[in-house]
Amino acid sequence: MVNEKDVSGNLHWRINVPDGTTNVLVPESGIVDKVWLELNGVLGGLRLKVWRFLLKAWDLAVAEPKKAIHALKVGLALSIVSIFYYMRSLYESVGGNAMWAVMTVVVVFESTVGATLYKSINRAAGTFLAGSLGLGVHWIAYKSGEKFEPIIIGISVFFFASAATFSRFIPSVKSRFDYGALIFILTFSLVSVSGYRVGELSELAYDRLSTIGIGTSFCILISMLFYPIWAGDELHRLIYRNLEKLADSLDGHVLEYFKDNEAVTEDNCPAKEIKGYKCVLDSKATEDNWAKLARWEPAHGSFNFKHPWKQYLKIGASMRSCAYCIEALSSCMESETQTPAGIGQLKKHLSNACKTTNKYSSGILRELAKTIKTMTKSSDMGSLVWEMNNAVQELQNSLKSVPIGLIAPTPEDTDDGKVESFITPVVEVLPVTTLVSLLIENAARINGIVDAVNELAGQVDMKPAPQENSKQYKPSSDTPH
Amino acid sequence: MVNEKDVSGNLHWRINVPDGTTNVLVPESGIVDKVWLELNGVLGGLRLKVWRFLLKAWDLAVAEPKKAIHALKVGLALSIVSIFYYMRSLYESVGGNAMWAVMTVVVVFESTVGATLYKSINRAAGTFLAGSLGLGVHWIAYKSGEKFEPIIIGISVFFFASAATFSRFIPSVKSRFDYGALIFILTFSLVSVSGYRVGELSELAYDRLSTIGIGTSFCILISMLFYPIWAGDELHRLIYRNLEKLADSLDGHVLEYFKDNEAVTEDNCPAKEIKGYKCVLDSKATEDNWAKLARWEPAHGSFNFKHPWKQYLKIGASMRSCAYCIEALSSCMESETQTPAGIGQLKKHLSNACKTTNKYSSGILRELAKTIKTMTKSSDMGSLVWEMNNAVQELQNSLKSVPIGLIAPTPEDTDDGKVESFITPVVEVLPVTTLVSLLIENAARINGIVDAVNELAGQVDMKPAPQENSKQYKPSSDTPH
Repeated sequence: MVNEKDVSGNLHWRINVPDGTTNVLVPESGIVDKVWLELNGVLGGLRLKVWRFLLKAWDLAVAEPKKAIHALKVGLALSIVSIFYYMRSLYESVGGNAMWAVMTVVVVFESTVGATLYKSINRAAGTFLAGSLGLGVHWIAYKSGEKFEPIIIGISVFFFASAATFSRFIPSVKSRFDYGALIFILTFSLVSVSGYRVGELSELAYDRLSTIGIGTSFCILISMLFYPIWAGDELHRLIYRNLEKLADSLDGHVLEYFKDNEAVTEDNCPAKEIKGYKCVLDSKATEDNWAKLARWEPAHGSFNFKHPWKQYLKIGASMRSCAYCIEALSSCMESETQTPAGIGQLKKHLSNACKTTNKYSSGILRELAKTIKTMTKSSDMGSLVWEMNNAVQELQNSLKSVPIGLIAPTPEDTDDGKVESFITPVVEVLPVTTLVSLLIENAARINGIVDAVNELAGQVDMKPAPQENSKQYKPSSDTPH
Repeated sequence: MVNEKDVSGNLHWRINVPDGTTNVLVPESGIVDKVWLELNGVLGGLRLKVWRFLLKAWDLAVAEPKKAIHALKVGLALSIVSIFYYMRSLYESVGGNAMWAVMTVVVVFESTVGATLYKSINRAAGTFLAGSLGLGVHWIAYKSGEKFEPIIIGISVFFFASAATFSRFIPSVKSRFDYGALIFILTFSLVSVSGYRVGELSELAYDRLSTIGIGTSFCILISMLFYPIWAGDELHRLIYRNLEKLADSLDGHVLEYFKDNEAVTEDNCPAKEIKGYKCVLDSKATEDNWAKLARWEPAHGSFNFKHPWKQYLKIGASMRSCAYCIEALSSCMESETQTPAGIGQLKKHLSNACKTTNKYSSGILRELAKTIKTMTKSSDMGSLVWEMNNAVQELQNSLKSVPIGLIAPTPEDTDDGKVESFITPVVEVLPVTTLVSLLIENAARINGIVDAVNELAGQVDMKPAPQENSKQYKPSSDTPH
């Protein structure tokens, strides 16, 4: 008996065989169809993935065009080096070492000038040092006879490779000469192995050094002349942007918390900026890296060669300590899910003092951002700090003058029913008092940032800012100066 | 008139000239002496620096012997490769490509197995891909005639180098294939440049691939067989050690804060462990790096190939959020420089509840550390969490039952002089209430870590721990179970 069935769009032939079971005959074309469908699905998925990847890449290029420009610079440098070796017919004269120039360009050309210089100098120094040492060891091995030659070379490779590898773990070497140590090992091993065979070591060493010289100077020129990206600039920008983010975040939190008390417009409380402190929490590794690279950069823009980049790390650390505080403040806001009745009044009572403290705190952060951005001393900083410390004192006074029955009336009062509506257990006002305490602590930490920035100002001998510009970041006009 | 004077051990000749001035005649030997002294000083300083550097290196080697062992492994691998090329006389057959094997060993051999595998696989894949693509482009260029050949090659180098460089900025590529993209650019450029000249491209490509194959498999074998250092193990150890540090730090803070109330022995309050939370704050970059490398590692120890390393990052993030809280707690302790009279009593009142909360909090952290360390589910965790949440509730109750006059008596009471000795403005109890608030918040965050670890336990299907061991980390015996 043969049934024809259409299951989910496909034709199936079902045969009831004499032993009672049912066999399904899938037509040949069905298999092809299925494979085709599956393949189509896989291909479609792949197409979609590739398409999404390209979209992501495009978004990145639009968001940070300098990354795309760096990519084009690398392409340009490599094409020029390739064409250089083609046009000049240098292949015969420089020999297989032409590839060292190409390799140098590929390996040394980094996105920032500092990284390019770091790698170039390390590569050149490592090659030179290891080359000289390798020649010396080779000479000693050669003098000690054929029998000892491989032993001496083997032992020296073992010793120097181990020592250089281990030195890469030592922090002071790691931060400055990590790549140099790698190149040292590489060159020393190559000189030992190939030198033993080729015998024309000094020529090889000269060739390698000259091609590396061509490659590195070419990279340095291209990275510094065409649309340079300075690690120092990046660090500088990161620091003042993070200061602005901290200010926005602090403002956002305080305004958000006290928004029940008055109408807060959308402009005053931007929800997306409130999480800005998280960027500050996570930027330590980036700061360290850029400060490490910025050291290698020559004078550029408003930065001298010996610009105190390490001080930026101190500023970064003090900013992070401020961000920790805002993090705690944020969670303390979240823990207060419903406001018990009594708190409303306490909040209202403290609202103004908190807002004033916050106004000066975030004002100082913005002023510090401006100070770093323009590299000019702010004339308002002293008075702002004074005002902030005053506001903190004021806040503490408000706490002292909290209508006492509001927080915790004595049992007698409660029994009398006099202040019953005011009864608020200490546990309920905890979020408010914690917030206030953190605001005060935050003000102390902001003073730490001010100190760090002042230290920087002293180190680089900042000029005072022109008076008319300095008004721009001042908090609203009711500030007495 | 001539005076002879012995000034600070040196002989000076002083001549009073007729115009009344005095000339000092410094003998020739004095200059030599001075130069010698200065040189000696410089040399001594250098000797001292080198000596200090060596001492630092020695200390590092003693503190982390695996770093020294890794250095010896690299030395060993390089010596073997060098000797291999010497003994087998392979130089003639493999040609100048012997150096690719050496170079591969130097560049690919990293301290962890994960990093070595990551670099090996990336290097092999990048070389293979770029080699094939380079051959294809070269064939097209060759077919299109002598005139277009350099143009096609130049453009293709520009295009592929730019695209690959740009792809290194895309996070998903950067985290997995950064090194592969670099090697892709390198190989493609080399094939283009040298291929154009040599004409024996496929042989070159075969040679390079085979030497890279020899080098990488050699590195992988040595790094996995002799005293392997697994990135996964490092991440694993970092996470549970950080949990222990958090527990110690939390204990240290709370015991330090409440130590006025009872005798605290040195064992209970170790000052050096109190700052342990700072390690947790700074370990994000390390965790990210190790998680990135651990993905490449095969099954080892108690970890399978697809071990959920990403979950460790989640645990790390929740630990950091806990560390932020301890940081705030630490500063709140520091801000309380002198204890006003009224606080003492409040502290005493809250002391027990705080200590109990802390006991369970740090107990949970230690239990979590043990859970991760042994990869076995703790049978006590549920009850510990329950106890901690109970303790938090208890703490909140203690706050509710704070003798009310202690905190803030009503003005009437004060006027009566009844509770004068209890008068404490709200501002003075701020540190205590903030500390309590942060302890409560910290307990909530510890619940977050518990959730993250439970998720991990579910993902790797942890077995329950044997009962007798699980007693080890339980807080002191007065815990009702």
